[in-house]
Amino acid sequence: MTSSLEAQGLAVRAASRQLAQASNERRIAVLERVADTLKNREEELLAINAVEVDAYRESGAGRDRLTLTSQRIAGMADALRDIAAAGDPLFESVDASVRPNGLRVERLRVPLGVIGVVYENRPNVTSDVAGLCVRSGNVAFLRGSASALHSNVAVVAALQAGFVAAGLPREAAALVDDVSHEAAVEFMQLTDVLDVLIPRGGPSLIASMREHATVPIILDGDGNCHVYVDKDADLAMATAIIVNAKTQRPGVCNAMESLVLHEAVASDVLAALDDAMPQVRLLGDARAQALDARIEPASDDDFSKEFLDLVATVAIVDDVDQAIDHIARHGSGHSEAIVTNNAATADRFLARVDAAAVLANTSTRFVDGFELGLGAEVGISTQKLHARGPMGLDALMGIKWVIRGEGQVRR
Amino acid sequence: MTSSLEAQGLAVRAASRQLAQASNERRIAVLERVADTLKNREEELLAINAVEVDAYRESGAGRDRLTLTSQRIAGMADALRDIAAAGDPLFESVDASVRPNGLRVERLRVPLGVIGVVYENRPNVTSDVAGLCVRSGNVAFLRGSASALHSNVAVVAALQAGFVAAGLPREAAALVDDVSHEAAVEFMQLTDVLDVLIPRGGPSLIASMREHATVPIILDGDGNCHVYVDKDADLAMATAIIVNAKTQRPGVCNAMESLVLHEAVASDVLAALDDAMPQVRLLGDARAQALDARIEPASDDDFSKEFLDLVATVAIVDDVDQAIDHIARHGSGHSEAIVTNNAATADRFLARVDAAAVLANTSTRFVDGFELGLGAEVGISTQKLHARGPMGLDALMGIKWVIRGEGQVRR
Repeated sequence: MTSSLEAQGLAVRAASRQLAQASNERRIAVLERVADTLKNREEELLAINAVEVDAYRESGAGRDRLTLTSQRIAGMADALRDIAAAGDPLFESVDASVRPNGLRVERLRVPLGVIGVVYENRPNVTSDVAGLCVRSGNVAFLRGSASALHSNVAVVAALQAGFVAAGLPREAAALVDDVSHEAAVEFMQLTDVLDVLIPRGGPSLIASMREHATVPIILDGDGNCHVYVDKDADLAMATAIIVNAKTQRPGVCNAMESLVLHEAVASDVLAALDDAMPQVRLLGDARAQALDARIEPASDDDFSKEFLDLVATVAIVDDVDQAIDHIARHGSGHSEAIVTNNAATADRFLARVDAAAVLANTSTRFVDGFELGLGAEVGISTQKLHARGPMGLDALMGIKWVIRGEGQVRR
Repeated sequence: MTSSLEAQGLAVRAASRQLAQASNERRIAVLERVADTLKNREEELLAINAVEVDAYRESGAGRDRLTLTSQRIAGMADALRDIAAAGDPLFESVDASVRPNGLRVERLRVPLGVIGVVYENRPNVTSDVAGLCVRSGNVAFLRGSASALHSNVAVVAALQAGFVAAGLPREAAALVDDVSHEAAVEFMQLTDVLDVLIPRGGPSLIASMREHATVPIILDGDGNCHVYVDKDADLAMATAIIVNAKTQRPGVCNAMESLVLHEAVASDVLAALDDAMPQVRLLGDARAQALDARIEPASDDDFSKEFLDLVATVAIVDDVDQAIDHIARHGSGHSEAIVTNNAATADRFLARVDAAAVLANTSTRFVDGFELGLGAEVGISTQKLHARGPMGLDALMGIKWVIRGEGQVRR
């Protein structure tokens, strides 16, 4: 028997075949039409969302993420227009050659097909992801959280009205409306429907996917980002980078969580930070505590933690190699920075630290799709397979070998 | 408590960090040293292998795949030398830009780290995969089948002797020597050790991985490859391509399993095939059976089967779109060919068929790493994520963002 989720999945799969053949003009027109629809339905969206925000009982940043405002809806529409204005990634030639036997071989960029995304709160993710998928000839199959169900249903209805008006199938984006745990597990196992699954959420979501998912996953994991200040650093630059990486927006994955200081400069850097970011709670190892009375003891686990708050760990090291080892042990493979004026030390750090992004003399906060020139991003991959770091349209594409002959056969 | 597999995994992970930093010269020297070691140990390898071949009780192609000969060992050594001679893929620049704020952003190709491969019989895969991994700065962590355990242990010992002689850690390639089901499941869940897992085996291996694996997988799946003969085909060319794709080596994944014929030419093509490949058993739909008395009835399942034998299905269609639909329904996403002299029809087929490789006027047998210019291959991916089609060194690499500034912070 086909479950309702499977039946929906088959419709989504069928729509993906149409999307993959839709012309550039058609895909642009759709995104513009959908942007209009979102703005036209603003009042309705805000009313539905207000009921859910009102019912939301958890503390923390969740409530803010759940909330739609007139400005946020305008932002969603603008994001769709920006995505429409990006270059067409479909059927781009990756490489081409002619073999000795005359075969013409080319690799073209093609859509992955159906992109599953599981996310929490944030109804704006619904339209952002759907927009990126349409631009790249893919279909978004979305599963939001229970707390945002009605908001997401309303956003998807607006998207679908735009699709139909522009001559595309309704299911060019679709939402799973059963928010039970059973449906979530079934969703992660739709191997005939989903080409990839992208979790955008906390460690418990990722653990659940690792346990249940049978479709390929791209992990948008934690960011335990380090800044290492080398003995050859410009200390004013180091201080400015640390303050920016830690405090400019502490609740995001590319914020600094861990500070690693060369012993030769540790005392000066800590003194500067006492002035520059007194509001940040510091947890440190014994050597750090000996240098600065305000540093509290850190457990081994603390060094691996993503605080997403005005808290950071401090570790003192003897040299760059100890810093690299500390990061290898505690890092999450997101973004790791060094501050140094010594080019050889910078190169050593950049070559040996294994992370999606490594930076010299700048803030980890720059590891972001817009900042790095990709435009809107689907997330930041902390895995190595397929996509790593900020994921733009390219991360939603695969390749296809196209081979043309004149009757060649193999001997 | 750490299991022995975990402990081995940690040593492999540590070795991968050394491999990722090994110079091009070092990696070339290692591959040449390992090739020598394999040839020097030929007698020992053959003796150990002979005992296992003798004990092998299953029928089919397994026995041949298990068998080492003097010639095969020479082939393994030659393959390692060929891999050594390929260009260095490490730290290749994928793209680079300077952002408006002066940040210099580059993406470099880096090793994935630890590549897990699960395979059946074929002790030659042991050295082929290990060689590709070393060339690309990765470590191979291998799990072969019980029937080939002693042969694989001997091959890995030869590899490791070469590594140590060339100054690399022993664990630059490693073999799981516990061939129990429990150890297999534990292996597929070594998320702290394996960066990717590649199954090289039949549907039951792939099903087991889908169920148990918690590390990312690249599927080297079945090939149900089609050849579609269009009404505008050159029939002599079509016959030659079909005969080549079906009979040149029927036991491999890029052999043709399914023939799709336009009704206007079906009768002529079938008549030509009665002469050109009478040894091939044909199973067909009612329309095919009506055209050729030797065609037996095919079940719906038959149209989706990978026979790996001198058997093929035949389906008759009214036009290219019906052929595309037939392939969408029954294909495995491996390699799909059209024979036609009509450029528009060829383009339609090549654009609309969703497979790792699509071909016009040539044999599916060309979908192979060597034939397409990649050199030795790790397998042929039938998934869309990360790698699709023949996988060469590139498929074993990821990217890393390297960002250099002069103190820039984000506003």
